[in-house]
Amino acid sequence: MNTLPNDNKNIHIEIINTGSELMLGRVLNTHHQWLALQLDELGYTIDRQLCINDDNLSITGAVRESLSRADLIIVTGGLGPTSDDLTRNDIAQLLGRRLLVDSGTIERIQNMFSRRGTPIPFNCEIQAQYPEGALIIPNDYGTAPGLAIEFFPNLFRKNQQKSFIILLPGPPRELYPMFRNSVIPLLRKKFPFASAHKLLNLRTACTGESSIEKIVAPHLQYLVKEGLQIGYCARVGEVDFRLEASGQKADEILKQAEQIAREKLGEIIFGTGTQKLEEVLIQLLTQHHKTLGTAESCTGGFLAHRLTNVPGASAVFMGSCVTYSNDFKRQLLGVQSETLEKWGAVSEQTSIEMASGMRTRMNLDYALSITGIAGPGGGTPEKPVGTVYIGLATPEGTFSQRLYCPYERESFKFYVSQFALDWLRRTIIHSLNP
Amino acid sequence: MNTLPNDNKNIHIEIINTGSELMLGRVLNTHHQWLALQLDELGYTIDRQLCINDDNLSITGAVRESLSRADLIIVTGGLGPTSDDLTRNDIAQLLGRRLLVDSGTIERIQNMFSRRGTPIPFNCEIQAQYPEGALIIPNDYGTAPGLAIEFFPNLFRKNQQKSFIILLPGPPRELYPMFRNSVIPLLRKKFPFASAHKLLNLRTACTGESSIEKIVAPHLQYLVKEGLQIGYCARVGEVDFRLEASGQKADEILKQAEQIAREKLGEIIFGTGTQKLEEVLIQLLTQHHKTLGTAESCTGGFLAHRLTNVPGASAVFMGSCVTYSNDFKRQLLGVQSETLEKWGAVSEQTSIEMASGMRTRMNLDYALSITGIAGPGGGTPEKPVGTVYIGLATPEGTFSQRLYCPYERESFKFYVSQFALDWLRRTIIHSLNP
Repeated sequence: MNTLPNDNKNIHIEIINTGSELMLGRVLNTHHQWLALQLDELGYTIDRQLCINDDNLSITGAVRESLSRADLIIVTGGLGPTSDDLTRNDIAQLLGRRLLVDSGTIERIQNMFSRRGTPIPFNCEIQAQYPEGALIIPNDYGTAPGLAIEFFPNLFRKNQQKSFIILLPGPPRELYPMFRNSVIPLLRKKFPFASAHKLLNLRTACTGESSIEKIVAPHLQYLVKEGLQIGYCARVGEVDFRLEASGQKADEILKQAEQIAREKLGEIIFGTGTQKLEEVLIQLLTQHHKTLGTAESCTGGFLAHRLTNVPGASAVFMGSCVTYSNDFKRQLLGVQSETLEKWGAVSEQTSIEMASGMRTRMNLDYALSITGIAGPGGGTPEKPVGTVYIGLATPEGTFSQRLYCPYERESFKFYVSQFALDWLRRTIIHSLNP
Repeated sequence: MNTLPNDNKNIHIEIINTGSELMLGRVLNTHHQWLALQLDELGYTIDRQLCINDDNLSITGAVRESLSRADLIIVTGGLGPTSDDLTRNDIAQLLGRRLLVDSGTIERIQNMFSRRGTPIPFNCEIQAQYPEGALIIPNDYGTAPGLAIEFFPNLFRKNQQKSFIILLPGPPRELYPMFRNSVIPLLRKKFPFASAHKLLNLRTACTGESSIEKIVAPHLQYLVKEGLQIGYCARVGEVDFRLEASGQKADEILKQAEQIAREKLGEIIFGTGTQKLEEVLIQLLTQHHKTLGTAESCTGGFLAHRLTNVPGASAVFMGSCVTYSNDFKRQLLGVQSETLEKWGAVSEQTSIEMASGMRTRMNLDYALSITGIAGPGGGTPEKPVGTVYIGLATPEGTFSQRLYCPYERESFKFYVSQFALDWLRRTIIHSLNP
């Protein structure tokens, strides 16, 4: 029952995220990125992503518009038990379908609460309703099931192909497993993959977008003429360099492009796809049985947070001291009082003592330290807001670098931790290939 | 030259975020939330937010559609120097305006790079181009200026009002200050605020959406009949309870609703508006001159990261030990080897020794500890993945609570840190009002 063309690059996918909390900025739309990454891995690309209020007019208006264009519409949010959860009703109305009640869902909700020993919350049974003919997608981590509805959109556009609309719950801990376990198999069945589209994403850290273009783009021009597409995505502290090609020669074009990019960019490339720098570093430490500890001041635990986001980090990352106060720096890391008095907490000397103190006291292979002035206060003419010293203690000695990052706090923490992680990554690579 | 109606609730605002990196999930769309919060504070609400690819067809198609509806369109991204930065050109073309070159921008870019002592990157001068008649918005933190274009959209819809389109650069460290310093004054001038719409957002932590609705909604029904609107926004570990009213009685309705909500929900409410729990806690500690340290295992520095995101935290938050290994727990916090052997690293006893070790060793008023099993590995039948012990050391003694949070890592870290922060907040409030 494959009702759609086989080349997924011809399949039009639109995402609609509903919720007044999104429109008011009360919540960050992480669904869009997460769904985009999942779909990209399957070979699908999103054409449009729309955020709207969860009122009847906005939902039906947006879905009606999407129906005139898209083969697959994924709507998130508005399936909960409260009075502003309207998606189910609105879409049933738009498609002209009755709402029925699924007794299996009622039973599942009742069991869920009786296992927990708590009474069923107010209005919870509304979540067992579904538009007639919809496929009910089980929810293993919450009350509201997902719904998938297949239909002829000939009311909305002039073709005889079936379209597919999938409604998913808003909470990530329900949405993520539901998408992985049930929606992906459904998509594979309905929209089988047969595209010759190839892509490669090369990840780089702490080098500017223009520099990367200058280093590599001229050498790829001859491939661009043959159909290679080049894209850049710059964020604070990282640039993705993306290579794409379609058609019969896609493989060969991409292979040549990768070889040139790797030759020109060398160790600037830290990974591919969606790899994170902290994942690459943890992998490198694990492979070579090296341990790491960190000593942070101005990044306030963010470096440790990034490292501990990597599953399996505990095998090589032993811990961190977040030493905001000088007392903590002295007592936990053994930074000398004289150093703090003479050079200050933000200095090359303090960064060196923080890193070497962490490394020797805790008996580690490597230690990174960060001390700086995140601002808004605390700057001086010699050391303005944004001044940072990064220390790196290794078996070969302890080193320090000075950075200047006059960014707002979030970008500041990310850039500084990115620089530290990348410095350690390059140091380990050099010590293995001297 | 106020060309638009005075009631901002009648002003239609649409946001268009461009970038293939957004559509591919390579970057998280934080612009939408940030702009929504800024606009909400000014009294404006976004009707629609759209993400699209940065190709000519997508940009002109989306902007054309928005022009048929919106009074204000804000487009972000695609103003950079590389070959996929097309927004400026596409919009000039759509509006039928010539592209001119601004010599002031060229000069600013040249000065910027000569101050840094680096050569001007490849293609950078493209960013001095602007559609004829556009207002050039200075960029103090990057090369590409913003652009504001006022025009009669009578090509796109049938009215005689002027519309406004604003193009802003993608990088947050350029976008944020440009919006604050230049765009907000422009909006205040073009769309002056005269609405009688009132809203109040009450923030709660670690209580479910259904529970909150059950506690408070029945008591607000009589006000709903008079026009009060109630909304809930549930995220992991927090629910926003939102009250809105319009018209002449808005103030009175909202005042009564707030009084009832505060009476019924009591200390469940930790703040209002966009306040974060960590901000409220740092404020409480600062007011009462109390110091705090943390000792984290499974949250890996995330608790310290949240606390150090609050400007001024360094006055009360002294630091954290992220003790992933048992060695770190023993050496930095003084956890007994016997405790770790007999009860395990994830136990009530270890959480107590971590918290009291941090508090007494570092001479603090309060210390929070967290030890648990984030997963995916490490669970046992008695202590499955998701088991967490939180310790709280206070002048009155040290306490521990057991939680069960079987969430993916990001939600896990957030929920657990949220619970710990809220426990300390309530404890301080109780100790002050026993």
